[in-house]
Amino acid sequence: MNQDMLKKHISQQFNAELEDVRNRVLTMGGLVEKNVGEAIEALVNGDAALGEMAAKSDYQVNRMELSIDEECSRILARRQPAALDLRLVMTVIKTITDLERVGDKAEKIGRLAIELANQERLDRYKELRYMGELAREALHQALDAFARMDVELAMQVVRGDDVIDDAYDALTRQLVTYMMEDPRNIRRGIDVLWCARALERVGDHAKNIAEYVVYMVLGKDVRHVTPEQIEDEVRKATR
Amino acid sequence: MNQDMLKKHISQQFNAELEDVRNRVLTMGGLVEKNVGEAIEALVNGDAALGEMAAKSDYQVNRMELSIDEECSRILARRQPAALDLRLVMTVIKTITDLERVGDKAEKIGRLAIELANQERLDRYKELRYMGELAREALHQALDAFARMDVELAMQVVRGDDVIDDAYDALTRQLVTYMMEDPRNIRRGIDVLWCARALERVGDHAKNIAEYVVYMVLGKDVRHVTPEQIEDEVRKATR
Repeated sequence: MNQDMLKKHISQQFNAELEDVRNRVLTMGGLVEKNVGEAIEALVNGDAALGEMAAKSDYQVNRMELSIDEECSRILARRQPAALDLRLVMTVIKTITDLERVGDKAEKIGRLAIELANQERLDRYKELRYMGELAREALHQALDAFARMDVELAMQVVRGDDVIDDAYDALTRQLVTYMMEDPRNIRRGIDVLWCARALERVGDHAKNIAEYVVYMVLGKDVRHVTPEQIEDEVRKATR
Repeated sequence: MNQDMLKKHISQQFNAELEDVRNRVLTMGGLVEKNVGEAIEALVNGDAALGEMAAKSDYQVNRMELSIDEECSRILARRQPAALDLRLVMTVIKTITDLERVGDKAEKIGRLAIELANQERLDRYKELRYMGELAREALHQALDAFARMDVELAMQVVRGDDVIDDAYDALTRQLVTYMMEDPRNIRRGIDVLWCARALERVGDHAKNIAEYVVYMVLGKDVRHVTPEQIEDEVRKATR
């Protein structure tokens, strides 16, 4: 094999490795999404068995995090990636941390669903389901943006986080009123509050992932700036 | 300069860069610790001005995260670290994410302290102060373990997280009782609950950082395993 062929061979193998690590992130993301979905279903339908399933499958998410993390270390040590490749690896390292935390939220909601399954249901569950749909959709779109390296879609997720926060604030207010109506509602009200809070955090993690995607594609770090500032950056970069 | 001297020169410069990034993490950690401490003080003393200060200085923490992250990318691209050096950089990347989230908690507690400052004080503040001390101490020890690459100390932090969790559970139960006694306590009780929850999360982040330290020093990933399993690993590695 001459030098050029060897180089090409190495770069093909490297590309295959990067492709593989990307796919593994998407598989992990898919599992986390599924767990969140099942945990919400379990909660709103009072289905303890489903809650148990959602909670129990978190160990798989944790295992995936560790193995992808190892793979990233290996790539960094062996391939010494630069530019976009390096940003991709950095994005993966950060994204899986957020995905793992989302997995923890699914586990938590699953466990609360078990607790709440044999208690009287609240009419607040409709709002919780709505919040759950928003949070899951945000996560799905963030992973989609990662898969397609789609800055526009990532920006939609960043902007959309306000909607989840508003839904959370509204639900919190309703729950406080509900608890004030009858002190016997307090314990259950607080459990539902934790679920709402967990979903709000899922939205935050989706936003984090979306911000990493913008960084990966444009090479600009857009954390801790307003959506308007990010859009300025996107405009500048794509002009 | 001959080849050997050049190599030595490059490696000295590289060591200086690694040392610099380590110091920056410790500076960031120190600031986060200070913010957490001030936020707790603000809360238990009903000091709105101090709460405002703790909340406002979070932007500095965010800026530090971004700049250390950039420095890590630069080191990865230019120096292509391996083995312990690579693990150090990976540990830094993960540690600053956790520190940034702790900074968010300090901001949150600071804001809640402002809210609560002009309301009647609860006698639950003693327990909150105790939790705050535990959480701050855990964070301090985790950063110390990072600075000294001290696996034993890191393990203490990992084991100690249960104590924070227990304090949190006890406080939550007390708060529910307090809210049940008088519905007018509910809103305030929930605010205090959020503070307790934030402190419990600070403990989790300290534990995460301690686990990264074990990984950095031993090259073993100890997340998602029990403290007993970690101790086995430590024994094996130091035998």
